[in-house]
Amino acid sequence: MAQSRVAIIGTGLIGASIGLGLTAQKERKFEIIGADRDRSHANEAKRIGAIDRAVGSLEEAVSGTGLIIIAVPASGVRHTLKEIGPLLMPGAIVTDTASTKARVMEWANEFLPPTVHFIGGHPMAGREKSGPGAASADLFKDANWALTPSPRASEQAISVILGLIEALGANPIYIDPAEHDQYAAAVSHVPILLSVALFRMLRDSVGWEDASLLAGPAFRDLTRLASRDPTMSADIMATNREAVRHWIVRYQQSLNAIVQALDEGDDVVHALFQTTQFDRDSFIANPPFRRAPEGNADPGSSSDAIGRLLMGGGYDKMKEILNRQPSLPKDDPKLRRRLGAPDDEP
Amino acid sequence: MAQSRVAIIGTGLIGASIGLGLTAQKERKFEIIGADRDRSHANEAKRIGAIDRAVGSLEEAVSGTGLIIIAVPASGVRHTLKEIGPLLMPGAIVTDTASTKARVMEWANEFLPPTVHFIGGHPMAGREKSGPGAASADLFKDANWALTPSPRASEQAISVILGLIEALGANPIYIDPAEHDQYAAAVSHVPILLSVALFRMLRDSVGWEDASLLAGPAFRDLTRLASRDPTMSADIMATNREAVRHWIVRYQQSLNAIVQALDEGDDVVHALFQTTQFDRDSFIANPPFRRAPEGNADPGSSSDAIGRLLMGGGYDKMKEILNRQPSLPKDDPKLRRRLGAPDDEP
Repeated sequence: MAQSRVAIIGTGLIGASIGLGLTAQKERKFEIIGADRDRSHANEAKRIGAIDRAVGSLEEAVSGTGLIIIAVPASGVRHTLKEIGPLLMPGAIVTDTASTKARVMEWANEFLPPTVHFIGGHPMAGREKSGPGAASADLFKDANWALTPSPRASEQAISVILGLIEALGANPIYIDPAEHDQYAAAVSHVPILLSVALFRMLRDSVGWEDASLLAGPAFRDLTRLASRDPTMSADIMATNREAVRHWIVRYQQSLNAIVQALDEGDDVVHALFQTTQFDRDSFIANPPFRRAPEGNADPGSSSDAIGRLLMGGGYDKMKEILNRQPSLPKDDPKLRRRLGAPDDEP
Repeated sequence: MAQSRVAIIGTGLIGASIGLGLTAQKERKFEIIGADRDRSHANEAKRIGAIDRAVGSLEEAVSGTGLIIIAVPASGVRHTLKEIGPLLMPGAIVTDTASTKARVMEWANEFLPPTVHFIGGHPMAGREKSGPGAASADLFKDANWALTPSPRASEQAISVILGLIEALGANPIYIDPAEHDQYAAAVSHVPILLSVALFRMLRDSVGWEDASLLAGPAFRDLTRLASRDPTMSADIMATNREAVRHWIVRYQQSLNAIVQALDEGDDVVHALFQTTQFDRDSFIANPPFRRAPEGNADPGSSSDAIGRLLMGGGYDKMKEILNRQPSLPKDDPKLRRRLGAPDDEP
C-alpha cells in the first residue's frame, strides 16, 4: 500500500535521528524511505538502520507517499517545497524541522497544493555535530517540539504529527510561527552568535597562544555552538534576521546591566548571581511544559488508516495519546483560529 | 612521621577531588587530613574517602604538616594564609587552587614566613555543582594546571607540586600571576557574566513563560555557568576586577563585529561561521599544551624525603616525571627570573 510509506527528505542529524526513532517502533506497518542531496548521507542513514531504503530523487521519495518529513536546513526548505509541491498525492501530510517557521509557513502556502496538509515543526534538540553519523533515536527524548499547523491542515493530519512526536518521546507545543521565531532567536539563534563572539574574541587576541592554555570547561561549553555547521547557522540568521537583531540588542542591554552591577559593588554582584542561580536551577529542575488543552476530539474511523500508516501495531497507544492530547483543542480560540477551524463548528 | 602528612584546607568540589585523586595513589606513605569551615563538608569528604581524617581547626591541619593545599574560594585564601602563617613549620610547602593569582601571591608574600615555600596553583577544571558530593578523582584528568611559584619557593618544593599535579593526571603550566589573571578573565570569568546575562535576558523578558518552552540544549549549555556557586563567582569578580572589565569590553567589540557581519550580508556571515568552526574544531582536536622546557635538574637526595612524602611507593615514577619536567627550566630566562633564580647560576 503506497500510503504506508514515510519519506524523510534530508538524512542528516535530525532526519536520521527521526528515522532511528521510527524504525525502533515495534510492529511497524510502514516503510521508511530517505533521500538526501548528499547521496552518501542517505546511504549512511540506510547503513545505521535509520531508513529502510535510500531513494535518489525527490520524485521517488514523495510520489504516493502519505507522510513526508522535510529535515533539511531552513534555506533548503523553500526549494524542497517548490520541487515536491506538484508531485504530492492529495491528502499527503508534510512536516518540516527547520529552525525558523514564519518563512517556512509562507513557502508552504505558496508551493503546496490545497489538498496537502502542512504542519510546520521544530524539535528543540540537536548537537553541534551534524550528519547521520551523529544521529540517535534518543535525540528528541523529553525535548519540546514546536508545531505550527497550517490553517489548511486537517485534524487527522495533526493527529498523525502528534503521534509521530510522541513516538519519538518528545512533547508537542503549539505556537504561532512569528512567536516561535522571536523566541527561537532568543534561546537558540542569538546564542550561536554569542558563542562565535567569545571564540573569536580570544582567537583573534595576540594572547591566544598563552590564553588558550587556560581554556577549560567554561570556555569549551560557551563556545560549543561555534562548532555548529556553518551553512545551517548562516541559514538561520538569513531566515530570522529581524528577530535575531532584536535579541542581540536585548542581550547587549542585559550585559550592560551586569557591568553596572560590577560598578555598584560586590554585594550587588553577589545578589545578582544568587538570584540567577536560584532562577536557573528552578528552570532546570522543572523544565516548562505546556500541556495541550483538554478536548474531546476522536480520531475516528476516517483517520484510522493514516494513524496506522504511522504507528502500525502501536495504533492503540496512539489513540490513547490522542485522547489525552487532542488534535483540535476546542477550548483554545486562538489555536482554533490558527488551525482555521470555523468558530461555529459543533 | 609528622612530615608525611598532606592537609587539604577546604574540602569542597576541588579540595575533595584532589583528596580522591591522592587517596587513590597506590602504596601511599602519607596521611591526608582535611579541614573545612563547614564541618559537614569535612565529614562528607571523610565519608567518600577523599581524606583519612577530618580535623576541626587550621592549627590541627597545618602544625607539623609538610604539604598544605588551600582549596577555598579566592576571597578566603587571604584569611587562610594569615591564619596559618604563624603555625607553619619551616620548609612546609603551601599551594592553593584559587581562580585568581596576582592577589593570592601578594597575600602569600605578606603572611607566610620566608622559610615556607609557596607555589600558587589553579587547575583549569570544575563543574557548576559545588561541595564534596560533586567531587571526582578524574576531575583534573588532562586539564591544564596553572602554576605561579613564589620567588622564594625552592626547586624541591616545586618538584613536589609538579608530582602532585601529575599524580592527578593534569598538565602543569608555568605562568606569570598577572598574565594568568588576564587570560583567566577571558576564558573563565567573563564567560560567567555572559551566561548570567543570557539567562537574565530571557528570564526578565515578558515572554519568559512561552520562550522557555523553546529553550533546548543551546540555552542550557550557554547558561550553565549561571548555576555556579554565587559566592565563588562573586569572589572571582572582586579579586580580578580590572581584567574582567578589560575582557568585557573586548567581548562587546567582538559581538559588535558580528553584528556588522550580519549587516554585510549572508556570504560574510557564512565565511565568519566557517572560519570559526574550523578554528574551534582545531582547538578542540588539539588542545594546546606547553611542555615544560627541557632541563637537567635532579631531585637529588635532599628532596627524596619530600618526594616520598607525596608519592609513597610511586616515588620512582615521580623521579621519572621530574626528569622529563624539571622543576627549574634553565633555558627560560623569564621563568628563571620569576622563580627568583640568579642569572649567573651555573
